[in-house]
Order: sequence, then C-alpha cells, then structure tokens
Amino acid sequence: MSKCKIDILDSTLRDGAQGQGICFSLEDKLKIVTVLDEIGVAYIEAGNPGSNPKDMEFFKKIKNVKLKNSKLAAFGSTRKPNIKVEEDNNLKSLLEAETEVTVIFGKSWDTQVTDILKTTLEENLKMIKDSIKFLKSKNKEVIFDSEHFFDGYKNNKEYSIKTLIAAKESGADVIVLCDTNGGTLPSEINDITKDVVELIGGKIGIHCHNDIGMAVANSICAVQAGVCHIQGTFIGVGERCGNSNLSTIIPTLKFKMNYDIISDKIIEELTSKARYIAEVSNIPLTDEMPYVGNSAFAHKGGMHVDAVCKSSDSYEHIKPESIGNNRRFLVSEVSGKSTILREVQKIFPLITKDSKEIQNITNRLKKLECEGYKFEGAEGTIELVIRKIIGKYKPFFELNHFKIIGEQPACNADFSSTALINITVDGKTEMTAAEGDGPVNALDKALRKALEVFYPELKDVRLVDYKVRVLDSESATGAKVRVLIESTDGEENWSTVGVSRDVIQASWVALVDSIEYKLIKDMERKMKMYF
Amino acid sequence: MSKCKIDILDSTLRDGAQGQGICFSLEDKLKIVTVLDEIGVAYIEAGNPGSNPKDMEFFKKIKNVKLKNSKLAAFGSTRKPNIKVEEDNNLKSLLEAETEVTVIFGKSWDTQVTDILKTTLEENLKMIKDSIKFLKSKNKEVIFDSEHFFDGYKNNKEYSIKTLIAAKESGADVIVLCDTNGGTLPSEINDITKDVVELIGGKIGIHCHNDIGMAVANSICAVQAGVCHIQGTFIGVGERCGNSNLSTIIPTLKFKMNYDIISDKIIEELTSKARYIAEVSNIPLTDEMPYVGNSAFAHKGGMHVDAVCKSSDSYEHIKPESIGNNRRFLVSEVSGKSTILREVQKIFPLITKDSKEIQNITNRLKKLECEGYKFEGAEGTIELVIRKIIGKYKPFFELNHFKIIGEQPACNADFSSTALINITVDGKTEMTAAEGDGPVNALDKALRKALEVFYPELKDVRLVDYKVRVLDSESATGAKVRVLIESTDGEENWSTVGVSRDVIQASWVALVDSIEYKLIKDMERKMKMYF
Repeated sequence: MSKCKIDILDSTLRDGAQGQGICFSLEDKLKIVTVLDEIGVAYIEAGNPGSNPKDMEFFKKIKNVKLKNSKLAAFGSTRKPNIKVEEDNNLKSLLEAETEVTVIFGKSWDTQVTDILKTTLEENLKMIKDSIKFLKSKNKEVIFDSEHFFDGYKNNKEYSIKTLIAAKESGADVIVLCDTNGGTLPSEINDITKDVVELIGGKIGIHCHNDIGMAVANSICAVQAGVCHIQGTFIGVGERCGNSNLSTIIPTLKFKMNYDIISDKIIEELTSKARYIAEVSNIPLTDEMPYVGNSAFAHKGGMHVDAVCKSSDSYEHIKPESIGNNRRFLVSEVSGKSTILREVQKIFPLITKDSKEIQNITNRLKKLECEGYKFEGAEGTIELVIRKIIGKYKPFFELNHFKIIGEQPACNADFSSTALINITVDGKTEMTAAEGDGPVNALDKALRKALEVFYPELKDVRLVDYKVRVLDSESATGAKVRVLIESTDGEENWSTVGVSRDVIQASWVALVDSIEYKLIKDMERKMKMYF
Repeated sequence: MSKCKIDILDSTLRDGAQGQGICFSLEDKLKIVTVLDEIGVAYIEAGNPGSNPKDMEFFKKIKNVKLKNSKLAAFGSTRKPNIKVEEDNNLKSLLEAETEVTVIFGKSWDTQVTDILKTTLEENLKMIKDSIKFLKSKNKEVIFDSEHFFDGYKNNKEYSIKTLIAAKESGADVIVLCDTNGGTLPSEINDITKDVVELIGGKIGIHCHNDIGMAVANSICAVQAGVCHIQGTFIGVGERCGNSNLSTIIPTLKFKMNYDIISDKIIEELTSKARYIAEVSNIPLTDEMPYVGNSAFAHKGGMHVDAVCKSSDSYEHIKPESIGNNRRFLVSEVSGKSTILREVQKIFPLITKDSKEIQNITNRLKKLECEGYKFEGAEGTIELVIRKIIGKYKPFFELNHFKIIGEQPACNADFSSTALINITVDGKTEMTAAEGDGPVNALDKALRKALEVFYPELKDVRLVDYKVRVLDSESATGAKVRVLIESTDGEENWSTVGVSRDVIQASWVALVDSIEYKLIKDMERKMKMYF
C-alpha cells in the first residue's frame, strides 16, 4: 500500500474539555487554537456550540482570527429523531458557528439506537443522511464520527456498515471509526479497519480512547490498516482515561514510520508546545509522558547512565533534542558515582571519581533523601550541598530571627499575612517587614527586601513556580512537606528544595538556597571577567 | 494456537525503583512483596543485590517471610568479560540473595556488545552460557532477559538469535525478549516474536518499555504471537516513561481475551491494590490510569452522564465494580443539569429538574468554578453550597477572629507555629490556642479545640489528606491556591475545598466546610432515629 497523507484532528478543546480537571476560559481556548495552528494540525475541533453557550461565544470571537495552517471545526450530532433537519437546534448552532468544517457524530451500534436514542434503526439511517446532506448543502466540509463503531461492528456488522454507507452516499468527506469506550484490542482494530477500508473506501479516520491503555497503539494500527485521518488531543486529555495522545502519535509517525507529517523545525518544538498546552490547560504534564515528559529521557540506574554517556542509543530510542526534550541524569540513591561526579565536575572539574569528596557528597545526598529531599530537578540545592561538603561555601547572610503573623480580624474581613525579618551581613544588621498574599509570599518579600540593601542584584529575582508536596499524607496537616521553588533573574531559571514538618520552614530553606545560588552565580560571572 | 498459561513477573521493586521519584525503604519493599503475593503474580523481582547494598539487606530480611503464591527473584547480569564465572561478584551476590529464581540479563544487540561491553561477540555468547550453566548448577530457576532484543534483531538478526540459542541450550527456563528502549511498534513486536517462538520454542517472555506509549499494547501483541510470560510493574513505574503497566494488562487478559489469569475475587481488589502500591511508593496514581484510575469511570459530558444512567455500556467498556473501581459523575460547567440534580436529590429528593433552585445552584457552582474551585471529589463543599442556596443551612459557629504566629527565634532554633482563635456558639464565646506542625495544623487544632466545648462529637474527626494546588503558577508564592482536605470520623471520609490567594485562608474555608459537613451528617443521623 502506498503511503497516503495523514491528517490530524486535534480535539483538545472539545473531547479534551470533557476530561477531569479541565476547565478552559475563552482566553485559554484562543491560546490553544494559536499553538495548534503553529504546529499545523489539519483540523482544530474547537467546541460543541449546540450544547455549551461558552463554546458558541468562542466561535463568535474566533471569526476575527485568521489561521495560517489549520481549519477550524465545530462539533455536534445528527438531527434528533422524527424532526425536520432544518428545525434541529443542534444543527442550527453548527451553522451559526460559521466554521469551514463541521464534525457530526451519529450512532452505528444498533442497541444504542434502540435503547438510548429510543428510535428505529431505519430512522437513525435517515438522521445520518439528512444531517450530512443538509450540511453539505450549506457548503461545509463534513467529517462523520461513527460513534461506538467497533462495538457496533462486533454486535451487528451489517447494520454498522449500513450507517457508514449512509454517510458516504450523503457526501461525508471523511468517515471516522470511533472506539468510543476505548476497550478494543489492536488486533481487532486492525482486522475491522481493514474490512471497512475495503468495503467503504475513500477517506477513513480513527478516533480512540485510552480505557485499556491502547489509544496510541490502536491509532497506529489503524494507519497500518489504511486510515489517513487521526483524531486525538495533543497531550491526551479527554473523558475517563483520555483520548489518543497526539504528541506521541505525531513523532511516532515521523520517526518510526517515515510519514512526512510535520517539518523537522516544528517537531523540534514538540516538547515546548506540549508543555505550553498543559500550562494553559492548568494540568501538570505527566513526567512519564512519551517523547515530551520531564522523565522521557531521564536516566537513574547507574549502569544506564554509564552506557548512555558512551552511546545514547543504549537507552534512548531517539535523540531527545530531535523533539526539543533534554537528557537528564537523576541524582538519587540508585544513581552511581558517575551521576554525582558529573554534577561535581560541573563546579570543580578537577575532582575525580575516586576522591574522598565524592563519597562524602554521595553520603550526604543519600541522608537528605532519607529525610524526604528529592534532588531531581533541584540543581540549585545540589550545587549548595556539594559546595558545603567541599568547603567552597560561605553564607551570604546570617538570620537572627523571623516572625510571621497571619490575621483574620473578623469573620468577613480580609486575611492579612505579614513577615518580620532580622538579618546580619558583614556585621551590619537589617530589620524589615513586608506584607504578602500568604505567609510564604510575605516571607519571600521581606527576605529579599532586607538583602537588597547589601546585594542590589537581587532586585531582578522573582519566583516563577512554587510547589508543595505532602510527603506522608496519612498524618495530613501535621505531615512532612517538601517545597520546590523555581526562581528566575530574567535570564536564567533555577530550582531549589526544602523539607520540614512545617511548610513555612521548608519554604524558608528553599528560599535561602535560591538566593545563595543566585549570588554565587553572579560572583562566578564577575570572577570570569577578571581571571 | 491453544491458550497457554501466562505467568506475570512484577518488577516494581527492581525496574520500578529506577523510575523518577521512586525511593523505597526496606519497610516499603516488604509491604509491596506482601501485596503482590496476595495478588498472586508468578514472580516478584525484588532487587539487584549485586549493585545495591540496600537490596542485599532486603533479601536477607525477606528470607524469614513465607510467600503463599509467588516466587521471589533476584536480578543481575551475566558475568563480566574475560573472568571466571565463579569469580564474578555480581553472580556471587545473586547466590547470596538465596532466592528460588534468578533473573539475569545479557546483551543480544551486536553493537552494544562491542561498543558498551567492549568485548567480542563470541565472548558475549560465552558469558551467557557460563552464567546460566553456573546458576543452573546451583539449582536456580533461571529467567534470561535478552536486553535490547528487538533492536538487536533489526540490526543483526543472526547474532541476536544466536544469543537466545546460547541461553536455551545452557538451560534457561524462560527467555524474555526485551524492548529495552521502548521504541518498537506493535506490528514489529508481532512479527519478530512469532519468528522467535517458531525458531526457539519453549517458554518465551516479553518485557516492554513505554517510550512510544506502546508498552501495554506490545505486551498484548506478544501474547497473541505466542509468549507466555509478561514482565512489567504493577502501576507502570520504571526508567524514563515506565514499564508495562500490569494493572492494565491483567484485566485486559482476563476480560478481553478470556485468559484465566486471576480469580474473580482477587480482580475485584485490583483498584485498591493499585492504589495501595502507589501509596507505599509515595507517588500519586494518575487519575487517567486505565481500569484503576480515579477518572477511569468518571463521566463529565452531560450527554455521557444521561446515557450511562440508561445503560452503563454506553460509555463504559466494563463494569467498574468488576475491578473494584467506582462510577463517578463530575460536577462541572460542562456537566448538564442531570448531574447537579443527582447531587441535589441526594439531600432533597423532592426537587425536580426544572425548579428554580437547580438553576440557582448551577449558577453558583459555575461562579465558584471561575474563581478556581473544583468540585470533583469535594462532596462536602457541594452539599454545603446546595444547602446555602436552598436555605437549609444555619452556621454552627461564628468566627470572631483568629491569628497565626510563626516564629524562627534564631538561625538554628526550631520554628514554631501557634494559632489563636475566638469563636461564638449560641451567644457563648470561646477563645483558645494551639501549637502545631505548621500554621494550618495549628489552626486546625485550635478550631477543633474551641468547638469541642460545644460539639464533643468532633473529638473523633481528623484530617487524612491535605493537598495544595497553586492555580496560576506564573505568579508563584503570590498566586491563588486551592486546598482540598479529606477528613474522617473513623467511619466515613469526606472532602472539602477552599480557594484563596492565601493558603491559610483557603485552608480555613475547607476546614470550616469539613466541620459543618460532619455536624450536619450527625444531626441527620439523630433525626432519623426520631422520625
């Protein structure tokens, strides 16, 4: 079979919006449309105007936005049973959305027609035909999503095929086989898709869900069986276990199957685009996500680290830079000396694997790990631990004391947080206070305010991320917490970590490391200018 | 092909321990062995005694534990090049572990032998033979993991097959084909595995990684191609993108492929076992995880909720109770009136879909969602919102004021957190204070201490989980936070949620809801006794 061109339809804003924890604002939707257009997916399915007034508002707003690469699609269903197609509110809304493309779903599983729609199999065929003909008469490109197709085929092959023929004969441009419940095996997808491609012909598509962990595999198997249109969501969000993850499918088609689906330049931005979409969706991107996850090229076992240094294909299926991700070596108790040596040599290039310092640093890191620290991603704290052991560290200030006051003066009054701090630098004492949104914010502000008197370069520093993890959730508010903060000076970002039973103290430890790391880096830069 | 029995090998404690964020204590390992034995996997690969002293300590300790169903396996590698097998420290450690089964990996990819091991192809074959014969002479059951097998086969089929023949002829009991880098397509797995099954015969196994999202699919395809031994980790943890997820594979083999792999009774505990292993591993179980995730049977789209109520197979591939999971309807802006009606009718059965209250409640919930609230899983707060709108709510106490003081009196002193609170119940004022581990813990203690004077039943209440989520991470410590707390009175658990710019105030809101919810439930129980 010769290789057909494959079109991608992204449904982050429609099927994805039905995922747990997803709640897009209008602004979020516009941002995601823009990034999907930059990636260049063929279709962006952006909402269901008939069922959700917020989606309709979005379609009104998007009319003024000109897309460069993608076509915008609105999603809806075939007309209701026993009414005229022109009178169906859902189809009216689809027209009002004024998109170039409309996607409509119809039922292909006989028992869903009779038990859920409560109509006859014959009427369902008419609903499919009427709806598609109506949209085609309005000059729409029509994608027909055949809901529950695989379950329908297994239950009543003849009827499920009839629904596809009805769609095809009415002018549907693409017919999409949906594994709506996500329970179909790759071998079944392969056999059934091949049958449909042979029987129906034309452009056939696939839409998979991940309920048995097969969404990506099933989509790829369907391509091998002849489909040329894949639906999914860019980072896999969706109802229940999610949709096919397009950030996995796109590089697999390109690198493993030689499809010309995306340019080399754009695929180098795959990781940053996926992380951006997660950020806008306000969900954490799973570390383990193929290709784009934070751990996708992270090596921890000592032997793995050694081998990857010799030859990256020892434990990497592609080069991480080809999709804009990074190789990482995780510092942990199972990491060998070579991982720790690598960190140490970044600062002190002359230290060797067998030196006493390496053993002392390893012991110290392991001890801290047992207390709940994790150094994966906390390069600022790792550097300070190393410096303290090697003796290349001098504190930049002394803390004399600090105090935090949170006050709710009355039931409906605003809560206020204030921090007081007293520090000494080179014999000079500075006391100051600051108010903030919450105790940690107040403490962060007060500390930097006091230190800026001595170190004006701290003016540019601000926190970009702040994460709290309860380590032993069984004792809840009394449990140990780990605080990870990410700071920036506008040019560079760095992360530090603190652990304590008290969230304030854990934050304090991470804040101090962050500031000291910044001051050390500045000193290094100055030294380089003179030596 | 007739159906062979399939053996499962769980490597959570070995390959899983190499996953980012995983760090098992000795106690954790013992707990996980116990639960895997209860599940009844054939083999538990519990560590690498030769590379990790903590693992060796574990094997010493586990000797006194008698397993009911599973065999314990220790993991290591073939001997080093050019030394005698009896002198290989790794193999010595394997014997010292005194397990019934040993798993050893050897190389089957020619370039890995020459470039990483830096030895000859011939010597590698000898290493495989010597090591297996040595272990067999010590009466071990030997599983041979053929590392990088699929990459090796694609690069030099002849040599890769020679390594398997060497293992077979030396007495290996199982030969496992490893997709070490996780980049192989299901179609390739199928073709290559079929070839090996035909050429080599005997017990062939599969070990997949998830770097292109195919680990589960590839394991299932390998079964269809004739393997009878699957390696993975119970919740999918492992190097980089993780290993094959056994909590997905096991129910798929049972329910989709009719393998008699696990009893009906044990599989009903699948969800609780997976969650327990995540808890012990101290990692959150992904909500979207197939079968066992919190969202695996969660319905959000209004149409989906309607249809599932009519017939569960509309949007569920199996019954959630068959694997001990639950169906959930998520309250959110895309949820239709029927979801909200369902919540309201739990409390006020007489309210109907079209009543004005439903509209008011929907509006209120949507407004709170826009402020950052999420009600998925926060049934306590939902009930209070509903009661406040309907007018069936009266506060149990009035807050007059509270104050929180956090103090770090000197650099190395302990940080202390204290909360002062002043409340009124039925005209009587109570002022008290409490110290705690952190400000929220202190506030929680002080509030309950004050309230117990009036409501002694609160003595049994304690928090079981406390989660903080920063909603807009760009402004870091000054961002809005959402606090979700889970409480228990020893009989029932309930969750409540609070949102604010200040973590203390957000926690306060959730704490108050938690206590009011408990007092309402107690009142309801008392009322039922009388009416």
